[in-house]
Amino acid sequence: MRDVAIIGVGINRWGELWESPLRDIFVESALEAIADTKVDHLDSMYVGCMTSGLFIGQEHLASLLADYLGQNHLPSARIESACASGALAAKCGYFEVASGASDIVMVAGVEKMTDVGGDGATYALSTAADAEYEVYHGVTFPSLYAMMAVEHMHLYGTTSEDLAHVAVKNHKHGAKNPLAQFPFEISVDAVLNSIMVADPLHIYDCSPITDGAAAAILCPLEMASKFTDKPLVRVAGIGHATDTIALHQRKELSWLEGTARAAKQAYKQADIKPQDLHCAEVHDCFTIAEIMVIEALGLVEKGKGGSAAKEGTTALGGKIPVNTSGGLKSKGHPVGATGVAQLVEVTKQLRGECGERQVEGAKYGLTQNMGGTGGSAVVHILEAI
Amino acid sequence: MRDVAIIGVGINRWGELWESPLRDIFVESALEAIADTKVDHLDSMYVGCMTSGLFIGQEHLASLLADYLGQNHLPSARIESACASGALAAKCGYFEVASGASDIVMVAGVEKMTDVGGDGATYALSTAADAEYEVYHGVTFPSLYAMMAVEHMHLYGTTSEDLAHVAVKNHKHGAKNPLAQFPFEISVDAVLNSIMVADPLHIYDCSPITDGAAAAILCPLEMASKFTDKPLVRVAGIGHATDTIALHQRKELSWLEGTARAAKQAYKQADIKPQDLHCAEVHDCFTIAEIMVIEALGLVEKGKGGSAAKEGTTALGGKIPVNTSGGLKSKGHPVGATGVAQLVEVTKQLRGECGERQVEGAKYGLTQNMGGTGGSAVVHILEAI
Repeated sequence: MRDVAIIGVGINRWGELWESPLRDIFVESALEAIADTKVDHLDSMYVGCMTSGLFIGQEHLASLLADYLGQNHLPSARIESACASGALAAKCGYFEVASGASDIVMVAGVEKMTDVGGDGATYALSTAADAEYEVYHGVTFPSLYAMMAVEHMHLYGTTSEDLAHVAVKNHKHGAKNPLAQFPFEISVDAVLNSIMVADPLHIYDCSPITDGAAAAILCPLEMASKFTDKPLVRVAGIGHATDTIALHQRKELSWLEGTARAAKQAYKQADIKPQDLHCAEVHDCFTIAEIMVIEALGLVEKGKGGSAAKEGTTALGGKIPVNTSGGLKSKGHPVGATGVAQLVEVTKQLRGECGERQVEGAKYGLTQNMGGTGGSAVVHILEAI
Repeated sequence: MRDVAIIGVGINRWGELWESPLRDIFVESALEAIADTKVDHLDSMYVGCMTSGLFIGQEHLASLLADYLGQNHLPSARIESACASGALAAKCGYFEVASGASDIVMVAGVEKMTDVGGDGATYALSTAADAEYEVYHGVTFPSLYAMMAVEHMHLYGTTSEDLAHVAVKNHKHGAKNPLAQFPFEISVDAVLNSIMVADPLHIYDCSPITDGAAAAILCPLEMASKFTDKPLVRVAGIGHATDTIALHQRKELSWLEGTARAAKQAYKQADIKPQDLHCAEVHDCFTIAEIMVIEALGLVEKGKGGSAAKEGTTALGGKIPVNTSGGLKSKGHPVGATGVAQLVEVTKQLRGECGERQVEGAKYGLTQNMGGTGGSAVVHILEAI
């Protein structure tokens, strides 16, 4: 297998982009990624998108987007694994480059979520849960994560204030990210006094509905210096695992076994330990998710995730800064784009391009992207060379 | 890159499977593929499915199916490229094995199309066309292929009778396939007297709505004899190309440039010419499609596809038997499964397992799977070793 590098990244300003159709949002990020390199062509493309069928009535997305990028005839495939679609697209592109079949491969993610009215977005997102055993009975994602939070509170004494501190931290980071959907700070009181969505999750515990895209360009590490003058970023490890998509089938509601398994593979391939990491972008679709994820990644002990944000462990300047981009909470969560956007942020961190939110001397960074309540999980470890 | 073999295949009886949910249909085919080998585990899985979101309200499909196959935690991804989803899933699995990252990878396809009522299936399928420039204006797939047929008739003198002969041939083949949805013969008169769907396409020019799945297991060629006692089948070449998904953007409506490009890549990798092939499974979603496809594949000259079925060129016993399985027309067309089912048929042909529809001495076989009106196209060439 060939070593693979990320040589270019692109991302647009995320938000409620009423004036832009999905194809334009994608193209903006993809062109930025191309402009971030010196490549003169692409060999192939993978696009992560969760459910453009339900959001905008459009499947067959990868061919459409290749054409709109001015790359008609380019081999192009769409990858779907709910909110982990973006990172899985990156994994598929990684194999194509690693195999030797192609040299320059774009991996991207996109979602246009605001074009459906009424409860359309909530229904579209619910299709990441088990339709027959969960959704038919009224389950939505806030209620599923609320059940996970309740168990974590019961087992480990985690409090609503602990959850609020995750949102506060990520908004503090996001305030330093001009491309974030909500680039402003919030207070613990604001979270605790916001509308209750599904007890114990307030609306400020939940990531928003977002339109957005992100893109990255992969090539063999041995060719990377031909295509970029920036610091080289190697894909040091990838892990991927699934879990039951129905929450009631798990042994523990508040333990993310899929993430733990994906992380184990990625650490092994990268030959590093959790304590070797300098930054991490993780899937905080709800505040409780970040708490469970940092436990499954081994960044904190099992059961100790609740206090990490409050104590500053996961803040900029702390032991392991988590979600320097603002995370899903502040940056936004266009579901199929999130996994690639995490790779964009960590690549920029490893290149030293993050300005006010830069983690000084970052050499190893991790991304963790997951679908549903953790029914799919993908972990990438990137290394500055 | 490592050479890759297909060591096991599975397919269920296709049709209107009212009693079976998607997950059961998938598992039936997947278990048959496993039982066709001596493997004791899987390393990874790719599932092609076009639009389970619109058909059954279920995304996040690959994780769900890994679990229902008894493989909870297996890395598993869903691939979508409209009706080419199945073959693209196979391509993604091919790269994973070729790269050396994994040894035993299942590639599968599935679609459950009969659970939506009213015009639901027609709408779901229309999302393979351009939502903004085609579907909003009332286009459906029979009307798009009807326009392609009209141009082919205008340019080359192709007739409704020529189209009918494609359906008659494929039903004649399908009558020898006990797993086909419509395993019976029809006459030219029956086609020409059937209901007109979109002039010049009668309902017997159209493939049906089908529930079904198919699966295959890949491994490195060098390990294949450990896992099967059957004749070895090598993936000799793969080609993949896209085209505009909007028909009006093409230079010629009745020329499949995506398929022509994919075929060129596959022939080059396999180092063979079209005349070296012994059988082919192609994407006859409408009778006119088979006519255009055999031209783009170089099996007949451009403009000469119309008479191939009538003259027996593409029938069993002819120069190049096309769609010995019955094709999409007689075997059925569960859209995400079709590309993998084509690989199942060609694998069985190369192993000499096709009974009454066997092509004697078949050494090279081709599959061609496409999405929309040809906006994505994937060609595989398989070789008996």
